[in-house]
Amino acid sequence: MLGSGGGGDPYIGKLMGIDALRKYGPVQLVSPDEISDDCLVVISAMMGAPTVMVEKLPRGTETVDAFLALQTYLDRTIDYTTAAEAGGLNSTTPFTLAARLRIPMVDADGMGRAFPEIQMVTPTMFGIAATPMAIADEKGNASIINTMDNRWTERLARTICIQMGTTAMIALFPMTGRQLKESMVAGTLTRAEHIGETIRQARQQHQNPIEALRTVTGGCELFRGKVADVQRRTETGFTRGEATFQGTDGWDGRQLTLRFQNEHLLAVRDGKVVASVPDLITVLDAETGEPVTTEGLRYGFRAAILGIPCDPKWRTADGLALVGPRYFNYDIDYVPVEERLAEKSARAFI
Amino acid sequence: MLGSGGGGDPYIGKLMGIDALRKYGPVQLVSPDEISDDCLVVISAMMGAPTVMVEKLPRGTETVDAFLALQTYLDRTIDYTTAAEAGGLNSTTPFTLAARLRIPMVDADGMGRAFPEIQMVTPTMFGIAATPMAIADEKGNASIINTMDNRWTERLARTICIQMGTTAMIALFPMTGRQLKESMVAGTLTRAEHIGETIRQARQQHQNPIEALRTVTGGCELFRGKVADVQRRTETGFTRGEATFQGTDGWDGRQLTLRFQNEHLLAVRDGKVVASVPDLITVLDAETGEPVTTEGLRYGFRAAILGIPCDPKWRTADGLALVGPRYFNYDIDYVPVEERLAEKSARAFI
Repeated sequence: MLGSGGGGDPYIGKLMGIDALRKYGPVQLVSPDEISDDCLVVISAMMGAPTVMVEKLPRGTETVDAFLALQTYLDRTIDYTTAAEAGGLNSTTPFTLAARLRIPMVDADGMGRAFPEIQMVTPTMFGIAATPMAIADEKGNASIINTMDNRWTERLARTICIQMGTTAMIALFPMTGRQLKESMVAGTLTRAEHIGETIRQARQQHQNPIEALRTVTGGCELFRGKVADVQRRTETGFTRGEATFQGTDGWDGRQLTLRFQNEHLLAVRDGKVVASVPDLITVLDAETGEPVTTEGLRYGFRAAILGIPCDPKWRTADGLALVGPRYFNYDIDYVPVEERLAEKSARAFI
Repeated sequence: MLGSGGGGDPYIGKLMGIDALRKYGPVQLVSPDEISDDCLVVISAMMGAPTVMVEKLPRGTETVDAFLALQTYLDRTIDYTTAAEAGGLNSTTPFTLAARLRIPMVDADGMGRAFPEIQMVTPTMFGIAATPMAIADEKGNASIINTMDNRWTERLARTICIQMGTTAMIALFPMTGRQLKESMVAGTLTRAEHIGETIRQARQQHQNPIEALRTVTGGCELFRGKVADVQRRTETGFTRGEATFQGTDGWDGRQLTLRFQNEHLLAVRDGKVVASVPDLITVLDAETGEPVTTEGLRYGFRAAILGIPCDPKWRTADGLALVGPRYFNYDIDYVPVEERLAEKSARAFI
């Protein structure tokens, strides 16, 4: 729901998490205000193209390999792990690690959504370095990277990740508890749990889960329709492409196109931008309310599409420089999704 | 002379070495039999495409950055440095490091010539791992790599090197003194010094330096001619291409083509292979006897071309698997250069 179509198929993350919990026992989840200012936290995540992730499943040891390689390099015990992204399999990747190593996990993430590149986390805005970071694959290869800035981390790690088979496990952004508290998005897992509960309750009460989801996420309905075309290619280590929807259920005769790079970046309805990064664009199964990732879109799939306001940190000048539409080469200004939909011309269609 | 056209422009290595010696004082050179079995030695080298190296000069700090990053990672003092290659700038790269860090340098190298890829050193044949290795650039980026084998080291390091700008400084093959003694080519610098002396003496005595060089290296004259065409491209992090020579000085009306990937790999004379990897193919200025690197070949350049027998370690089955013609996708068997030239059909032309 919060992955905006990316972050890798959450089903894989779920299976990995369940397997780890069964084998190694439950994971202790702590909120950011429970951790000390001087503790050491490291983000654990999977990196790569979601299209590849669904075919090349992790062996299970890479997450631990990357984490321990970084811990050895730092020569200090890492006290906690936490999530890079709120969505996709990376919301559950840290569970696997926390269960295996029996360390607690902090209820937070670096985006409040998912984004395709390493530097695209709120800690970057607070001057926190992504490196030293570790990257490991299932073949036993591993690397420690130190870079001059977080864009360089993305550049070097991406090229290594491609060689490793376009997916790899990473441990990065070593930071203190104090840094985590000031820079990360807090309460991500609690929020995800609340969203899950909402879907379940709506279904049990035979209500429309999509309406309930719109309410609980503070989102706006952008469109309802079925997939008429998907162009998708795996290039430069990412899944890139676009999907076109033909309107149904009150949107008949109209069209919406989504452009994506791992995550949905832009929604264009009848030639007009109705939502853009950093706001979330979420595609849901029109029947079940289940979110669908960009690599899961198929011809004929019936969807409801929501635009969900992003974390306020992203709506600053620094945030937009990092993840605004222009960073992704779309020559438009960012306008919050709720304002776009309130505009006269947009409203006219609703 | 021993670089077989590769290893990067030795002029740059020479300038760097002289600068370091002036600033930091002389370097102690020790022979392999002077070092203890349990000391720690690390190879220091530049990695990348020679065409790029002549335009993107090292800043000077990268060599030290890579070496110290590896030392910190190994958590042990490195006692000596030594050379990866006998030719090009990499024969002098370790001088720069040894002078700056005031550590001695071992008179040896890993090839007895130059080769384009990391795994192509005699220690690979003795099961010595290239990793942990460090790679650093002039911008302040650095990485420590651990891989499952030396081909994977090449693969990951090459891709990082390309991102760093297609040149980078590396520290690799941490090995004991005992491992160095059994696996490396000994006496490389002494040999290079002897070759240099030969050129100087021949010039002073107004003798033909090329004849003297042929004798001192045990090489065979493959051709004399001028460059009629050079095709050169920088791709996948290497300088690749071919050069065609039109015969002069007794080779009139005949043609020789060299194929290269950083180093010369194959010499084809009038449609017949006359020398191939791992034997050395050395292009000399016909007037001065100065060796020319692959990136220095220019239209009209007058050359004498020698084929020089490689170190005997390369002529084993293991050696040929690593650096024989088939590894470079030439579908021919390796025949030692002196045997090729002794063959009837080849001899017929001489």
